[in-house]
Amino acid sequence: MEKKYVHGFTARESSRLVDQATTLAEVLHFDTVYEAGSDVLEAGCGVGAQTVILARNSPGAKFTAIDRSEESLHAARERVSSQGFADVAFHQADILNLPYADEYFDHVFLCFVLEHLPNPVEALLCLRRVLKRGGTITVIEGDHGSTYFHPDSPGARKAIQCLVDIQAGMGGNSLIGRQLYPLLKKAKYVDVHVSPRMIYVDSSKPELVEGFTKNTFIAMVEGVKDQAVRSGLMEERDWDRGVRDLYKTADEDGTFIYTFFKGKALK
Amino acid sequence: MEKKYVHGFTARESSRLVDQATTLAEVLHFDTVYEAGSDVLEAGCGVGAQTVILARNSPGAKFTAIDRSEESLHAARERVSSQGFADVAFHQADILNLPYADEYFDHVFLCFVLEHLPNPVEALLCLRRVLKRGGTITVIEGDHGSTYFHPDSPGARKAIQCLVDIQAGMGGNSLIGRQLYPLLKKAKYVDVHVSPRMIYVDSSKPELVEGFTKNTFIAMVEGVKDQAVRSGLMEERDWDRGVRDLYKTADEDGTFIYTFFKGKALK
Repeated sequence: MEKKYVHGFTARESSRLVDQATTLAEVLHFDTVYEAGSDVLEAGCGVGAQTVILARNSPGAKFTAIDRSEESLHAARERVSSQGFADVAFHQADILNLPYADEYFDHVFLCFVLEHLPNPVEALLCLRRVLKRGGTITVIEGDHGSTYFHPDSPGARKAIQCLVDIQAGMGGNSLIGRQLYPLLKKAKYVDVHVSPRMIYVDSSKPELVEGFTKNTFIAMVEGVKDQAVRSGLMEERDWDRGVRDLYKTADEDGTFIYTFFKGKALK
Repeated sequence: MEKKYVHGFTARESSRLVDQATTLAEVLHFDTVYEAGSDVLEAGCGVGAQTVILARNSPGAKFTAIDRSEESLHAARERVSSQGFADVAFHQADILNLPYADEYFDHVFLCFVLEHLPNPVEALLCLRRVLKRGGTITVIEGDHGSTYFHPDSPGARKAIQCLVDIQAGMGGNSLIGRQLYPLLKKAKYVDVHVSPRMIYVDSSKPELVEGFTKNTFIAMVEGVKDQAVRSGLMEERDWDRGVRDLYKTADEDGTFIYTFFKGKALK
């Protein structure tokens, strides 16, 4: 079952995904370090935005990065090689049909993947099969419902809701961050600990105004304009006004808040 | 100008305010410590829920706690005395008409006060007058729009919106947390730094499920039921269903998220 993704592969999208990881890298990944020699599965590596960060943070670990999309895998391999990381193997594979023996990996990592899956618990159970007993799983997801800002704007909120609705229409769930705890429990993981990572932006942090509010979040909203307008979720004029309001949150008096959730658990 | 407050003085409300401070004390107040001998103004001390924490954290500082309500001041004085703190003076006074000379205090502190004021910048300017140059102001506020939870429920969100609407109807602003940065800048403070304090609750934290989700947040929502129903904001049946849904976020599979904002700045 191949699905269209909200995160596409246009040049801008690809650069956005990397921008996002680079800007947020410290917040999201600083505490993910794998011991030398350990076998780590990155499930759904996409274009490799997180793969290079994982490899940089854990120089002695051996990574296996999988994705269903050959096109993504190709981009990921190029990125990882160009940055000089050697210990990453790339396999085209589906999380729901993993070509590995039971208890093959020491650790499993996935980031911005569950949000796209119609049945995240099934995916977590499949990943659990290939994880050793006592091994860790680390899951990072956003939650678009965690977004708020000043000045507030019903039009801006409606544009964000389009993103939520479009992803839901494709079987995904962009409100999944808040659900990591019950999802990991339902998939029989133990010692589940969820750590929220809030991005709070005001004009005292110009690098986040540019790197997060504008070039990550608003860019993502702008990326679904055609889908939102074509499918009748919003009139083009209202959409444009909503996005203009979102940009006001990046002004000197504006503030912008978004939260990612990082779950860690054991098998 | 005397106003009715959303936070009333019933026994349950009073105990809720104290529960809240006790449960959240560490998260909100751990980094507020005043040097011995310094004069600190607590503006809008209410029933003294924060006053006792301030006094405990800064044993050598001299506190002046003011409130417009004699009833609140009486409760605050009783609470502070009963816990053995001596160095707190209580004055009945209005923030907009402070009975102190210019640059009288070394520091100013206020918590859950600006949310009730129709003109928070005016209040911040009045407080700035009595603050010494180089002295700090610390402001803590919630933001009801920061609330989200699992399972999500439009009815529960509507009940929370009643709280926002009722407070707005009384000239307050329960979405003020996200605005602390621009408010402090507008009131001419410098070196403004806002630090969000997220309360993330899942069933691995039973003390927060009870102490925050149920006994602080849901209790606060339940406190405006009569106003919400009487004023026609919500039908009683819908209200009850919304509150029932809120309680589901405190179940084993539920999660609940709320964020306070702590601003610190200099004159």
